[in-house]
Amino acid sequence: MITFLTDFGLQDDFVGTCHGVIATIAPDARVIDVTHGIRPGHVLQGALVLANTLPYMPAGVHLAVVDPGVGSSRRALALSDREGRLYVGPDNGLLLPAAERFGGVAEAHELANAEYSVQPVSRTFHGRDLFAPAAAHLAAGVALGELGPPLDPDELVRLDLPQPEVGQNRIRAAVVVVDRFGNVALNLRRDDLQQVELAAGTRVEVTASGDRFFAVFARTFGDAPRGSLILYEDSYGSLALAVSRGSAAQLLRVEEGGEIVLDLGGR
Amino acid sequence: MITFLTDFGLQDDFVGTCHGVIATIAPDARVIDVTHGIRPGHVLQGALVLANTLPYMPAGVHLAVVDPGVGSSRRALALSDREGRLYVGPDNGLLLPAAERFGGVAEAHELANAEYSVQPVSRTFHGRDLFAPAAAHLAAGVALGELGPPLDPDELVRLDLPQPEVGQNRIRAAVVVVDRFGNVALNLRRDDLQQVELAAGTRVEVTASGDRFFAVFARTFGDAPRGSLILYEDSYGSLALAVSRGSAAQLLRVEEGGEIVLDLGGR
Amino acid sequence: MITFLTDFGLQDDFVGTCHGVIATIAPDARVIDVTHGIRPGHVLQGALVLANTLPYMPAGVHLAVVDPGVGSSRRALALSDREGRLYVGPDNGLLLPAAERFGGVAEAHELANAEYSVQPVSRTFHGRDLFAPAAAHLAAGVALGELGPPLDPDELVRLDLPQPEVGQNRIRAAVVVVDRFGNVALNLRRDDLQQVELAAGTRVEVTASGDRFFAVFARTFGDAPRGSLILYEDSYGSLALAVSRGSAAQLLRVEEGGEIVLDLGGR
Repeated sequence: MITFLTDFGLQDDFVGTCHGVIATIAPDARVIDVTHGIRPGHVLQGALVLANTLPYMPAGVHLAVVDPGVGSSRRALALSDREGRLYVGPDNGLLLPAAERFGGVAEAHELANAEYSVQPVSRTFHGRDLFAPAAAHLAAGVALGELGPPLDPDELVRLDLPQPEVGQNRIRAAVVVVDRFGNVALNLRRDDLQQVELAAGTRVEVTASGDRFFAVFARTFGDAPRGSLILYEDSYGSLALAVSRGSAAQLLRVEEGGEIVLDLGGR
Repeated sequence: MITFLTDFGLQDDFVGTCHGVIATIAPDARVIDVTHGIRPGHVLQGALVLANTLPYMPAGVHLAVVDPGVGSSRRALALSDREGRLYVGPDNGLLLPAAERFGGVAEAHELANAEYSVQPVSRTFHGRDLFAPAAAHLAAGVALGELGPPLDPDELVRLDLPQPEVGQNRIRAAVVVVDRFGNVALNLRRDDLQQVELAAGTRVEVTASGDRFFAVFARTFGDAPRGSLILYEDSYGSLALAVSRGSAAQLLRVEEGGEIVLDLGGR
Repeated sequence: MITFLTDFGLQDDFVGTCHGVIATIAPDARVIDVTHGIRPGHVLQGALVLANTLPYMPAGVHLAVVDPGVGSSRRALALSDREGRLYVGPDNGLLLPAAERFGGVAEAHELANAEYSVQPVSRTFHGRDLFAPAAAHLAAGVALGELGPPLDPDELVRLDLPQPEVGQNRIRAAVVVVDRFGNVALNLRRDDLQQVELAAGTRVEVTASGDRFFAVFARTFGDAPRGSLILYEDSYGSLALAVSRGSAAQLLRVEEGGEIVLDLGGR
């Protein structure tokens, strides 16, 4: 079983070509497309979505490619975590938050063995030429150590995960994911608000793009009248903003990386 | 075999995460993605597409989620039809037009047995936590009745299917689906026009968004000159409007739910 | 193994319905979706993407549908190439560049045997009613000759592949594919430039949409500063333009079919 996450989109052949490469090497492997809709080049978004979704995936080989540095000196990796899952992707921090959910990195190897790549390796499509073949060979039973020399897990590239600033009543958070429904997930979990009492119906002032809005803390979309802004705990445990039957991203004019300030002082 | 239709889109991980849940529960189940492009929250469009496409699908478990009421008091369902197909989805009318194509609902059960869900069940992603797990357990051989208490099929929520107004020469119809090519399918079938003689070449006046257009009844796109508007019977038996190598939706400025008036009096 | 390429997009049910038809006829066939994002009706783009990607696919049945002439008098085909791959699609030139990569067409047959179609065959969705069923029957072991009468390979419809004009220093090329990252692939391969010395760092003047730009020849995106225009050999061997962490298509304001002039005289 291989899971597959990228920023390739589905308009082009990139994803399909990787599926072809995998099926050629490992005809019996089954591939689950987690998503290919990560914003182009947004390694942080890719890392968070991979970490959020992995607990719902069967354990296996987890292939992820969000790789703005393709063809440069960044290394190509295969890892294992402490529960035996395998990961393949670029050494840019993409894989680590997921592996850390399962005990952290046990072993890391550089993809250096040409036998397990598609030759000649292009400069711009390592998904096809390096990462998909490595994942397929792992799924077909090749040992992790065969793929190339070991790397020290402590020397892998790590992302700076943006941290919210949590004050007494005022919280400054970053937009992590905007989904198709316009729901806006923040880098904020309920645990971050332990000193704050958030109950259904709590009123929150929201500042975004220079404008102020009022949201109500709710459990689900249907708990608020159509068109009203709600703050809720989303299905991955992040605090998020939504508009009942509308788009919070459109109302607040924010996108990934944007800033949101929540003020709970006026309750 | 599981078929899967939603309004989740493919930008986010929603569809992939459901695939992961299914593969974890029923590793041998195969999933066919019917479409995930239903307009967000448009239960009627989802119901019609499900009913149109089901005759082309292998019989099995038919999972469908277009669920603007997620987390509210609407019930979660599993059904069987009189030919043995199984259905899983919300109790908002989504499943019934399809089941009625195969003899109607034989049995209905509420998804209440926590054993067949992913715990804890979130308030906002029942696709992942309730519906996909139920479909996977059915595909793995769990009996319908195991999922929860029986419901009276007559008490399930039903949609108001919009009916066309068919006059002597004048027909008022609703736009049901606009596809990627800009073709505009109406809630109108050839049977609805038995008193009207529609032959290839028949001229029809079309009123949409306040403007008048002329269309010709044709069998296929290529039968009309490039750029001209045609009325035709589409591949699911609905009457539809198209522009040869162009977009009827753009020309007529209509979208799902819009109104079209056809006048056949001037022939 | 069936590979599947179309211009159907993923918003509608077209692709999913074809998957359903295939699974009904050949439950054990596995389908790889190469891409369904070919621009609607762009047969040339479909043909080039099919030819580029086929070397990465397992040999099998290669189903491709980009078919603006559906329902007209254009024929429906199944082919074999000299290496035994099978192809199914419309007789509009779509399949030939791919087959020619594998020795050319060995045998061609018209899809005329109603036994291997879904009846009644609609006028507008031959993907579902003719092509997908033929591919599924081939995958299930039906012989090519069973599908219909033989056709003379020399009488199949062929595309005019646009050729670049290569002068001493000045090259006039066409845009063949614009991908999700805004990278612009040209109908130009490095072999076409044998009299020109292109080395990393070579400066090239680019004229597009009436404006002039300067690009540098580079091996990969990361070799140039963020925001700068590069000319590079893409992963399918075409020369292409990209903007490091940006969109060349947006900068140059070009799309498929547009013209680009490269001038290497000023080096």
